[in-house]
Amino acid sequence: MTRTVSVEDRGFTLGDGIFDTALALNGVMFARRAHLDRLCAAAEAIGIRAERPAIETAVDAALLPTPSILRTTVTRGTGARGLWPSQAAESTIVVTAAPWSPALLGQPARLITATAPRNERSPTANLKALGYLDHVLAAREAAERGADDALILNTGGRIACTTIANVFALKDGRLVTPPLREGCLPGIVRALVLKIAPALGLEVDEAPLRPAELREADAAFATNSVRFLRRVTTLDGIALPERADDVVARLEAALRARVETECGADPRAPARTTAS
Amino acid sequence: MTRTVSVEDRGFTLGDGIFDTALALNGVMFARRAHLDRLCAAAEAIGIRAERPAIETAVDAALLPTPSILRTTVTRGTGARGLWPSQAAESTIVVTAAPWSPALLGQPARLITATAPRNERSPTANLKALGYLDHVLAAREAAERGADDALILNTGGRIACTTIANVFALKDGRLVTPPLREGCLPGIVRALVLKIAPALGLEVDEAPLRPAELREADAAFATNSVRFLRRVTTLDGIALPERADDVVARLEAALRARVETECGADPRAPARTTAS
Repeated sequence: MTRTVSVEDRGFTLGDGIFDTALALNGVMFARRAHLDRLCAAAEAIGIRAERPAIETAVDAALLPTPSILRTTVTRGTGARGLWPSQAAESTIVVTAAPWSPALLGQPARLITATAPRNERSPTANLKALGYLDHVLAAREAAERGADDALILNTGGRIACTTIANVFALKDGRLVTPPLREGCLPGIVRALVLKIAPALGLEVDEAPLRPAELREADAAFATNSVRFLRRVTTLDGIALPERADDVVARLEAALRARVETECGADPRAPARTTAS
Repeated sequence: MTRTVSVEDRGFTLGDGIFDTALALNGVMFARRAHLDRLCAAAEAIGIRAERPAIETAVDAALLPTPSILRTTVTRGTGARGLWPSQAAESTIVVTAAPWSPALLGQPARLITATAPRNERSPTANLKALGYLDHVLAAREAAERGADDALILNTGGRIACTTIANVFALKDGRLVTPPLREGCLPGIVRALVLKIAPALGLEVDEAPLRPAELREADAAFATNSVRFLRRVTTLDGIALPERADDVVARLEAALRARVETECGADPRAPARTTAS
């Protein structure tokens, strides 16, 4: 596996690329097709020629039997100078695996509201692009204020996401998450929750969401592919209601069931299942 | 000189770093102190511990006798997972040199207006951060529309910059460029122009600038450290006035004089001067 890239790689020099983060259990990447579909669509959107078979091969080579976080990065490669190269170069594909632990599941999140807004009108607002510095700085704000993550608003003051997750609010049986035009990523677990929820008797809606609506919700949670569903317990130091813990627990269980079906392991005890 | 970086380097994985681009002639980086002051201030702003002496040493090692574009990149290094690492790791410093040619001087620029705005409220709006994908995509728009560069507006519809340059408008002896709060970088040549212009009888002003003001100006130009001063001849296909060509020429000459004094070479013929 490639452990280095050229200092001329446009991923390094210009953040000119996109990436994906996924959970792998038992040597199986969960929701693999959805992850790689999204990655390839993003590459196409920014004009990077990346062949799907080459990405699939790189992912296969990185898969481990142990629980892992697979990170797949695709960049525009090592091109000539100039922001928009006149000729497309070969893209760079890098897949790395880091250990994943079930301890990442079930941790509640205290959020603060990040100072700076996310630009929902950016052409990269819906892409998992490499340029994460704004979110790194929002994560610093969260750490400095004793929180676990930062809620990021868009330029209209409505919720976009957190630094690493999509955001949901549940109110009177209606589950709301911001639509992509609000500046969030098309999260894989976000899509799964929207798909699973109706079977649990919930109405789902992609609609603009204001911070005040989190405070008035029956429950709020954040989703991503490493932690799945994470309850939001406080926002800027104020406790959020937890009136719908049972509903959130049922959503969590439904997600876990999908992982177990697909990967053959309960994510809460993947090592045991693997050993059996 | 390091030619590769780890695939775990946060500059590659998250665009978690900043950079600088400068011209070097005769083995001398032009405006070196200003460039490295800005780079170190940016590193400090985002919490990267980078020692100035280490950066100076890396720059010295990359300097060539031939005209070069020196690019200095500083990243948060190869850290643990997580957006905001709990412990600061050693930063990565990379300096590369690419050939520079006097042919880059004096080329006029046809601009188009980029579709998407720049987020002037981002904590990185005034930093030369690695995440340049939005500007890469604006440069693509320019290329697709037969232009040389793209004018980038902020979320208020006022001028921030181009994909690679600061923007100036000259009208009735008054030279205007957007203030930093409009979302532009504190360009080194921008600062020089603001410093030089009064001695040429111009009033200088950092003030919000609308695209319409470019159309009504006596002259408009863009500045950066590789091309210095570049006249803007058209905006979205419409010719801009060129009533103040003499003033622009005097600004260009004053900038060249500063380069020659500092580097001992006329940038228009650096090789000849070097050989003499």
